[in-house]
Amino acid sequence: MIKSDNITWHASQVTKQQRQTLLNHKSAVLWFTGLSGSGKSTVANAVERALYEQQVTSYVLDGDNMRFGLNKNLGFSAADRTENIRRIGEVAKLFVDAGTITLTAFISPYRADRDQVRALLDADEFIEVFVDTPLAVCEQRDVKQLYAKARRGEITGFTGIDAPYEAPEKPEITLDTSAQPLEASVAQVMTYLREHGIVPAVTADEE
Amino acid sequence: MIKSDNITWHASQVTKQQRQTLLNHKSAVLWFTGLSGSGKSTVANAVERALYEQQVTSYVLDGDNMRFGLNKNLGFSAADRTENIRRIGEVAKLFVDAGTITLTAFISPYRADRDQVRALLDADEFIEVFVDTPLAVCEQRDVKQLYAKARRGEITGFTGIDAPYEAPEKPEITLDTSAQPLEASVAQVMTYLREHGIVPAVTADEE
Repeated sequence: MIKSDNITWHASQVTKQQRQTLLNHKSAVLWFTGLSGSGKSTVANAVERALYEQQVTSYVLDGDNMRFGLNKNLGFSAADRTENIRRIGEVAKLFVDAGTITLTAFISPYRADRDQVRALLDADEFIEVFVDTPLAVCEQRDVKQLYAKARRGEITGFTGIDAPYEAPEKPEITLDTSAQPLEASVAQVMTYLREHGIVPAVTADEE
Repeated sequence: MIKSDNITWHASQVTKQQRQTLLNHKSAVLWFTGLSGSGKSTVANAVERALYEQQVTSYVLDGDNMRFGLNKNLGFSAADRTENIRRIGEVAKLFVDAGTITLTAFISPYRADRDQVRALLDADEFIEVFVDTPLAVCEQRDVKQLYAKARRGEITGFTGIDAPYEAPEKPEITLDTSAQPLEASVAQVMTYLREHGIVPAVTADEE
């Protein structure tokens, strides 16, 4: 497999398929969408951990690494929110091309924005994961006290309170984190990835 | 190594170090900079091929996948050129965090822009590769006939003709593609990566 440098190099680029073969799995975007507090990041990080345990290369794009980096020059206007999702979609596409299973955890409330990302990718590469946790549950969790502030009018344009959340019409996966433990949500995503041949099946030996 | 899903998941995120361990190599950016026609893309793609042959996960960011995707809403004004490089730097940082050896192939003529990317990354993660092919050679190659157009004044602001190229002051690697064959440039980069412990050494058996 490994060759010395002393061969004649051709200009042929390494293809996505070759990278997937090297990594022993396919690549795709798991696009988590749902209300603030629905559990998008928690599930995405737990799935990343599950993939890592199975030696699958994955990466989570979330507010922490996008809003303070690539998208730090964007605000919260309608145009900037759309550009935020567009850039995340383009980065996810690059990661998929690189062979990485990419998990994104953003509210991404607008159907048109999500569909624009879907259109960037091949049909089997965009997996919309609707984290369909009821608003009442999200509001009760209110880890960052954002719902309380939105209810008091201290924050405006807050998704689910005074800004719309457009639920996916045909998500590939639907999770309700209030109705099942985290392990079950992780298992649901992992089963999808295995059944669609994106990651290898776990053999009985490995269970 | 591989576990079933039926364990209690913790919210702990997978770290860059864990991803590097999984992939069996470190990650870094090889930032190729140089004049149009200097050979940046050719060398970057050949290095990617060499890394692939050694089962190292790498990815090339270049005009093809950036200008028509993430950066398609940018033009060629000074501000847009700076934003172009900033975004590429931020994406490269994400790829390095994901454990991928990332090769970028852009003229990136301004020292300040390149230094801004360097500042985003850890000290040993930014490897500036100065493709120091003389202007006369680049102009003679003129694959895309851009130099000819710039000389005729049909293109303005062309790096090396009527726009400056600010050479790196302390590049980690300097290559002159007019003075050595492609294989030698690739070997030079691969040697750097091995000597700095970024990719594993090739054993005698594998040569």
